[in-house]
Amino acid sequence: MDILNYQKEFLSYLESKKWIQEPKNLYKPIDYILQLGGKRIRPVLTLMAADIFSDGFKKALPAALAVEVFHNFTLVHDDIMDDAPLRRGKATVHEKWDINTGILSGDAMLILAYQYFENYEPVVFQKLAKLFSKTALEVCDGQQLDVDFETRNDVTIDEYINMIRLKTSVLVAAALKMGAIVAETNDENANLIYDFGLNLGLAFQLQDDYLDTFGNPETFGKQVGGDIIENKKTYLYLKALEVSNEHDRGKLKYLYRKKLKDNTVKIADVKRVFKVNDIPFLIKDQIEKYTQKAFDTLAKMDIDEAGKTNLKNFGLWLMNRSV
Amino acid sequence: MDILNYQKEFLSYLESKKWIQEPKNLYKPIDYILQLGGKRIRPVLTLMAADIFSDGFKKALPAALAVEVFHNFTLVHDDIMDDAPLRRGKATVHEKWDINTGILSGDAMLILAYQYFENYEPVVFQKLAKLFSKTALEVCDGQQLDVDFETRNDVTIDEYINMIRLKTSVLVAAALKMGAIVAETNDENANLIYDFGLNLGLAFQLQDDYLDTFGNPETFGKQVGGDIIENKKTYLYLKALEVSNEHDRGKLKYLYRKKLKDNTVKIADVKRVFKVNDIPFLIKDQIEKYTQKAFDTLAKMDIDEAGKTNLKNFGLWLMNRSV
Repeated sequence: MDILNYQKEFLSYLESKKWIQEPKNLYKPIDYILQLGGKRIRPVLTLMAADIFSDGFKKALPAALAVEVFHNFTLVHDDIMDDAPLRRGKATVHEKWDINTGILSGDAMLILAYQYFENYEPVVFQKLAKLFSKTALEVCDGQQLDVDFETRNDVTIDEYINMIRLKTSVLVAAALKMGAIVAETNDENANLIYDFGLNLGLAFQLQDDYLDTFGNPETFGKQVGGDIIENKKTYLYLKALEVSNEHDRGKLKYLYRKKLKDNTVKIADVKRVFKVNDIPFLIKDQIEKYTQKAFDTLAKMDIDEAGKTNLKNFGLWLMNRSV
Repeated sequence: MDILNYQKEFLSYLESKKWIQEPKNLYKPIDYILQLGGKRIRPVLTLMAADIFSDGFKKALPAALAVEVFHNFTLVHDDIMDDAPLRRGKATVHEKWDINTGILSGDAMLILAYQYFENYEPVVFQKLAKLFSKTALEVCDGQQLDVDFETRNDVTIDEYINMIRLKTSVLVAAALKMGAIVAETNDENANLIYDFGLNLGLAFQLQDDYLDTFGNPETFGKQVGGDIIENKKTYLYLKALEVSNEHDRGKLKYLYRKKLKDNTVKIADVKRVFKVNDIPFLIKDQIEKYTQKAFDTLAKMDIDEAGKTNLKNFGLWLMNRSV
């Protein structure tokens, strides 16, 4: 299991690409966002899956790059929509340049992502592009649902799970399946690794919800309490509305209408309501459930034990962020 | 030659698609912009080319739809960038909804365009998608150059021609070539019809520059003088800077720094400088040159005379807007 090696190989492939071409004002922002870093989880998944289902991962590098460029395209456009000034501690593209640059450079990235599939012969190309289009459209659907939910007060937990599935998990799942497609394994394996990724992605996103409120400020990358400050209706909030009594429900709804300068008391109040209602336990139960569902698909996969161990270890590594 | 029939068939295919699915806030704007109308020139070209190079055009309908959806995607995003309130006399998407909706619905349209190619078998699919990606990226390049030119004072005529080639002509050319690809004609024919479209597209765009200033307000769709009001550095302006004396050059540069409420005098002044310097004649000469270049490619094409006549008639129809 060598996640670091996949990361390293992916980064050197990324470096080998000449991003900046004419017109420079279009391609410089693309180079900028792609160099901002991050864990490169999605392209690593593509390489890992290709390695597990065939004798090597190098032929999956273009597909891995497509996934990473697409992911960064979503960051550029989402940051405009969220009016976010920072991304990984640096200025977002539309802040460093302007909104128009963010829109157009983002568009170009979406097209570039498709172009990397041209490295494959027609049948593999079509399989990759079909999966990619389906996934990309689902990510748009998820982003739209996320926006819609901001102004709705009747979002159910099922709807929330569906939203994070579309917005986050399908890309994790597709990244793995693309590796399987490049490796030309059978359809059943490809679908099983998709399911593995989908469930792991859900577990990961739910854990992100948990850590955003209950994580260790010293190890969690983002501001702890950020979702509460933003009145984001995460799993924690929706579950609390579902299981709490009228008094706590009223309190939560009251707190989630506030936009404050100093959020110390608000965060403490919300956390107290969550804890009293056992929400940390309930969400951990769900995280466990989806992680287990992911691992269960491994048993059905037609690969050797080493491959299964690698996938399981990756899942454990991903979920083992300090809670 | 039955442009109206191609239009009709395309429109009924467009109607047959269920655009509005969940989440509605993502797909309603897509339905809206696609129903706004327009001459549907690009999809008609795809159908016409398929008809000429094979025994029918119906199998080219999905490719024609991809071209039209892509074109409308560029309109949605360009209208945001240009801060344009109106499109075909109706509110633009970002005006009717908001900028975020325009960004996200546009993104979805770009992906949808790729999905229509899934109607074709792998080899044709790959050819279409490759041409499409190359073209779409060129359109982004052209849009970026157009933006860059706004703040540059040293744009040459060659650079301008290159910009309109990328921003406008390559899509006209690709629309035709896609029809040829679907018809599975030989590569030489496909490339020749691409060149036909590229030159016709340049002629068309130059004619648009001409009509914007010298057209008949009663028959020209847009506001005559719009480019002058906006200080747009079109072929007319750049050619005038090239051929006029210092006095006229100074006058033009002075006028193109102005942003006025009442533009009557400014438009008249600019037109006078253009006319004195024979610019209407010089641009017509270029329009003629590119139209003739387009028609010259027809001679080399391996199709029957009826096909050549159809393409030529289409060119004449397109260029025969009242001047």
